[in-house]
Amino acid sequence: MSFNTFGHLFRVTTFGESHGPAIGCVVDGCPPGIPLNEADIQPYLDKRRPGQSRFTTQRQEPDTVKILSGVFADEATGRQVTTGTPIALLIDNVDQRSKDYRNIADRFRPGHADYTYWKKYGIRDYRGGGRASARETAARVAAGGVARKVLGTGVAIRGALVQIGPHRIDREAWEWPAVEENPFWCPDRAMAARWAEYLDGVRKKGSSAGAVIEVVASGVPAGLGEPVYDKLDGDLARAMMTINAVKAVEIGAGFASVVLGGEENGDEMRMEDGKVVFLSNNAGGILGGISSGQDIVVRFAVKPTSSIPKPMRTIDSEGHEVEIETHGRHDPCVGIRAVPVGEAMMAVVLADHLLRYRAIGGAV
Amino acid sequence: MSFNTFGHLFRVTTFGESHGPAIGCVVDGCPPGIPLNEADIQPYLDKRRPGQSRFTTQRQEPDTVKILSGVFADEATGRQVTTGTPIALLIDNVDQRSKDYRNIADRFRPGHADYTYWKKYGIRDYRGGGRASARETAARVAAGGVARKVLGTGVAIRGALVQIGPHRIDREAWEWPAVEENPFWCPDRAMAARWAEYLDGVRKKGSSAGAVIEVVASGVPAGLGEPVYDKLDGDLARAMMTINAVKAVEIGAGFASVVLGGEENGDEMRMEDGKVVFLSNNAGGILGGISSGQDIVVRFAVKPTSSIPKPMRTIDSEGHEVEIETHGRHDPCVGIRAVPVGEAMMAVVLADHLLRYRAIGGAV
Amino acid sequence: MSFNTFGHLFRVTTFGESHGPAIGCVVDGCPPGIPLNEADIQPYLDKRRPGQSRFTTQRQEPDTVKILSGVFADEATGRQVTTGTPIALLIDNVDQRSKDYRNIADRFRPGHADYTYWKKYGIRDYRGGGRASARETAARVAAGGVARKVLGTGVAIRGALVQIGPHRIDREAWEWPAVEENPFWCPDRAMAARWAEYLDGVRKKGSSAGAVIEVVASGVPAGLGEPVYDKLDGDLARAMMTINAVKAVEIGAGFASVVLGGEENGDEMRMEDGKVVFLSNNAGGILGGISSGQDIVVRFAVKPTSSIPKPMRTIDSEGHEVEIETHGRHDPCVGIRAVPVGEAMMAVVLADHLLRYRAIGGAV
Amino acid sequence: MSFNTFGHLFRVTTFGESHGPAIGCVVDGCPPGIPLNEADIQPYLDKRRPGQSRFTTQRQEPDTVKILSGVFADEATGRQVTTGTPIALLIDNVDQRSKDYRNIADRFRPGHADYTYWKKYGIRDYRGGGRASARETAARVAAGGVARKVLGTGVAIRGALVQIGPHRIDREAWEWPAVEENPFWCPDRAMAARWAEYLDGVRKKGSSAGAVIEVVASGVPAGLGEPVYDKLDGDLARAMMTINAVKAVEIGAGFASVVLGGEENGDEMRMEDGKVVFLSNNAGGILGGISSGQDIVVRFAVKPTSSIPKPMRTIDSEGHEVEIETHGRHDPCVGIRAVPVGEAMMAVVLADHLLRYRAIGGAV
Repeated sequence: MSFNTFGHLFRVTTFGESHGPAIGCVVDGCPPGIPLNEADIQPYLDKRRPGQSRFTTQRQEPDTVKILSGVFADEATGRQVTTGTPIALLIDNVDQRSKDYRNIADRFRPGHADYTYWKKYGIRDYRGGGRASARETAARVAAGGVARKVLGTGVAIRGALVQIGPHRIDREAWEWPAVEENPFWCPDRAMAARWAEYLDGVRKKGSSAGAVIEVVASGVPAGLGEPVYDKLDGDLARAMMTINAVKAVEIGAGFASVVLGGEENGDEMRMEDGKVVFLSNNAGGILGGISSGQDIVVRFAVKPTSSIPKPMRTIDSEGHEVEIETHGRHDPCVGIRAVPVGEAMMAVVLADHLLRYRAIGGAV
Repeated sequence: MSFNTFGHLFRVTTFGESHGPAIGCVVDGCPPGIPLNEADIQPYLDKRRPGQSRFTTQRQEPDTVKILSGVFADEATGRQVTTGTPIALLIDNVDQRSKDYRNIADRFRPGHADYTYWKKYGIRDYRGGGRASARETAARVAAGGVARKVLGTGVAIRGALVQIGPHRIDREAWEWPAVEENPFWCPDRAMAARWAEYLDGVRKKGSSAGAVIEVVASGVPAGLGEPVYDKLDGDLARAMMTINAVKAVEIGAGFASVVLGGEENGDEMRMEDGKVVFLSNNAGGILGGISSGQDIVVRFAVKPTSSIPKPMRTIDSEGHEVEIETHGRHDPCVGIRAVPVGEAMMAVVLADHLLRYRAIGGAV
Repeated sequence: MSFNTFGHLFRVTTFGESHGPAIGCVVDGCPPGIPLNEADIQPYLDKRRPGQSRFTTQRQEPDTVKILSGVFADEATGRQVTTGTPIALLIDNVDQRSKDYRNIADRFRPGHADYTYWKKYGIRDYRGGGRASARETAARVAAGGVARKVLGTGVAIRGALVQIGPHRIDREAWEWPAVEENPFWCPDRAMAARWAEYLDGVRKKGSSAGAVIEVVASGVPAGLGEPVYDKLDGDLARAMMTINAVKAVEIGAGFASVVLGGEENGDEMRMEDGKVVFLSNNAGGILGGISSGQDIVVRFAVKPTSSIPKPMRTIDSEGHEVEIETHGRHDPCVGIRAVPVGEAMMAVVLADHLLRYRAIGGAV
Repeated sequence: MSFNTFGHLFRVTTFGESHGPAIGCVVDGCPPGIPLNEADIQPYLDKRRPGQSRFTTQRQEPDTVKILSGVFADEATGRQVTTGTPIALLIDNVDQRSKDYRNIADRFRPGHADYTYWKKYGIRDYRGGGRASARETAARVAAGGVARKVLGTGVAIRGALVQIGPHRIDREAWEWPAVEENPFWCPDRAMAARWAEYLDGVRKKGSSAGAVIEVVASGVPAGLGEPVYDKLDGDLARAMMTINAVKAVEIGAGFASVVLGGEENGDEMRMEDGKVVFLSNNAGGILGGISSGQDIVVRFAVKPTSSIPKPMRTIDSEGHEVEIETHGRHDPCVGIRAVPVGEAMMAVVLADHLLRYRAIGGAV
């Protein structure tokens, strides 16, 4: 069973609701001796943090992480390192406005988990979506910071937004440095400007927009993953699909591979300076569920924010037909803040499989 | 860990290679008292069985399933029922032609798991792809037959092929009965004829084609699934992505939801005859990782068969640049036979979550 | 994998070191709708709390538990209930005296985990035993409080100390009320007095004493447990053996069953007022790994406290032969405080199996 | 969940009933490249095989094991080696006499799992105990053969019977070679003769006898095991307690440690020829749940065989009070054949923890 735990050898258990006192996670299985302190984790939380532009929710959460366990100052070096015991990470909730949600206590917001939680549990913490809030992803991002330390500096994980609403980036214009220069993590500078304009329009209409995120891991050695049910792509698909509002995941060429002939789709191999090179990467770096040494490329779709000012038809818990308008502080495009979350899930999956690889004697 | 096991409460462990003596699985966690014999499972294997049309591999495997354990004749009724103990299912391999594969013993076929298995394990059973062969999916289909019995007759799981190469069906023309009438499980009669022609051309060129499969589960009660990491859609994404050659998975509107506004995407709710109805199903029957009672709709992309007669550039295990042509008995479009496999994985995931639902006292 | 997680459907993940800022746990899988607040948990922590008599360590820890997540006030009743989401419990560490442990930073205390942690991890938090400290059991006890709520009032779990050093209780003198009346949880009033005298002597000698704890669960329905590897007694054995300093576990007659003949050992069955009764309970309430409806009886041995003032021979991390004396605030008999811990583990195991039982449709 | 699966990285899933067509197991997680064929496994099955002396059941089962998957002939060496994929092992049932069991179809044999299976599942395969039969342990022994190959020749695992009924061996007389020379795996030659006489008497009386088995693993490196819930001793306790008829498990001094003072119980450490040595082994080779490098010593109690010719009082499934006599082919002391089973479980637990150790980078 996993429930609120993700991973097998590198295991992340998260907890907390949007409007409870705190959220957090326990990272279990982290190898010992890895330098780790809050400063290794905080930058990723800062990246996900709301309220940093007009395109994300205005809720103000400092998202300051505290390490409660699992680290100790190495006597020899004076540096704080992991000890191999569980690392508990705590993030206080600061800026709840629970009364904003009183009106949805009995009404099921379309596109939200309100109705299904109620059917499953018979009770739900409706304040800010409770456990179903995207706030849970802060704990994932914190865990991702630890996972990156396990992977080491040889593995680079970078995410970017490649589509908002109908507007896709020009892949030829892709520049990684651009990603840090706009509030969208957009690698295509021209498109970033267009998105700003587009989203302003969406917001004015009381609507919201979907997005596609691409996450790329470079430097991953060949041999990570398992055949059959623990395929690396299977784990990545699950990892991304469990992020709030995600409705689709693809690896490498993904759906586009369907229209290719077998001879176009298969990535041919050659030798270059004594090293194996692939002449294309339709596989997205994974063959038979195992990494090939190429970049691992995952793309996922985030549906438009379900909380919108426009009135929508729904029912309440007593079966009355009602209307609902969701005011409050919502992201016009939740996909934007999903970029660091997707990166974190990539890191967590890879860290898990790296440890699994070592277990069978792999020499990575 | 899962490795070759899928599921938590309803657990399927598969084993076997393409050219070993047998493949099979152990289904653990099946509730007791469910009528079960080979005839409940065989029809699904027959559906997946190769060699039934010119569009699938000509390998002849009867795929006859034997139940080795976990059932007993109920004294009262005389019917064979499950006992709650593990159900071992065995399928003999009959029509291996291992020598066909001697030439790939040292060469890595592009698009296959050859290179990555070799990097991970340092050794691989190259005959017919060994463990990486789609033959493993026969065991999944057998397990799916048991899962359907757990779900009962109230849940209907049906799959269809909705795209081959560039040719998508007309969704307006969808008729479920049509699916049984053509070798493609195509719900659009006109498209089935077109695919036959298209695939004949693909084969003549020594190429292959990709496909998109859609699997729909009807009658699934609301409340199945878990928040966060065991979301029903997360498990389905993993289930489908781990089928051989799958590169993408989407739920409901999937990637298409990105271009919708929030007000279009959110499925509005009304009451009808005292029952909850949704006015659309962009969510694909899953909200916040939990079933809503609507049809559960999953779509996945199968890349074009990697084994093709056309020569491709690759390397061998000693790092020499070589060419490879794959002759033998291969599916020009492996996606076709993925339909019963997708159905089986849907059944296995739902059976697992049904048991989980009961564990917390759900009244389904 | 479990590492720092215990249980399958009712899952407890603990974290924290003896001298870190806090310890705690995440309880995942708790069914929704169960009334729960801190007052339901605190009494069990108070029972385990150190410093309550001269026979336990003088470290002063209030062990006040905070619930961080997983509960919500039910609108209808106003009572706080579980929501089905993870319940995070936090207990601050208050009375650390880390400098007491500077002298053992490099020396391996005999009987402790110092040497083995160092061999496994290459680093250890030596302050108070770090993660290996019995302080971790406070988190188990907190989780046990939640587990008791899941089991409901029909199940009573009670523990008692039945042996200290060579002094065993007279089972004929067993009175449950006596357990609450002495600092040893001793059910035999006469023996309690004798133990007090004995332990005073042990302490004066700079030595320590072992103990045997018996935990009894009444009201457990028949049918809980699993055949083969998840046998109820297998899980109980693991649960108790993982408590600090435990070296032996037995169920029912345990080792004493070896000297019985088969006809003496088998618990015969009769009917009484239409109910099944057993004429003895050598099985300790478990047959074939599954509960029979009789009292479940587990006994476990706690070795004498390893931290003693008497000097002992050991080595340091550089391989020098040294002596070590452990001063500070140690329990002369750690077994005493293991009573509430054993009860908690019984509760956690039973809650897990109760949920598993429901999953297959059991009607308990 | 584990149900019929044991282990985390080295995973054994068993299946089969006493009177079904076959029993077997799937060993998942075995590292690749390990030479393995049937001859590596068969000797352990031969050791457990019934009918080899008058002191065990006369059922004749050749217990011939077949490997169905997971191995492949290494091209370079010609030797068959593991490939890293699941190893399915099959053992046919040959000598069932199901009609012997018709009379117990509705009656619950005292000391057996009959009543509890019926309460849990509402149905049971009563023939030979079905899944609850000790026949399941043949699959464990087969898996243990694979586990020994993973551990390598540096680790020696040996078991012995140390007590039958009231007769304990003289530990001073312990000679390992003696174990192979008598039908009891008794290390004390004088005691073996006495046991033969004792058991003949037990059989004549229509009774049965219990036993204590000791299993010792030598050559296990320090550092194997996990703190808290996956302690090596916790896993061993569960492993042994889940063997049929086991009622108690102890590690090292076990229950006897209770009467020791802390200074006697703690194993002191010295250096000898540059190596760490312990001056005693009360810990049984495990401190804080982690191996210390000393011999790992586990002892477990097997209750007297519950199937005895003497009549016993019981009830039937309709609640009638009846008597039952169990004739047929039963072991007068099932503990004897538990020796190779205990060895196998030790091997499986150690193999699992060896792989886990490697996962965090251990250099063993």
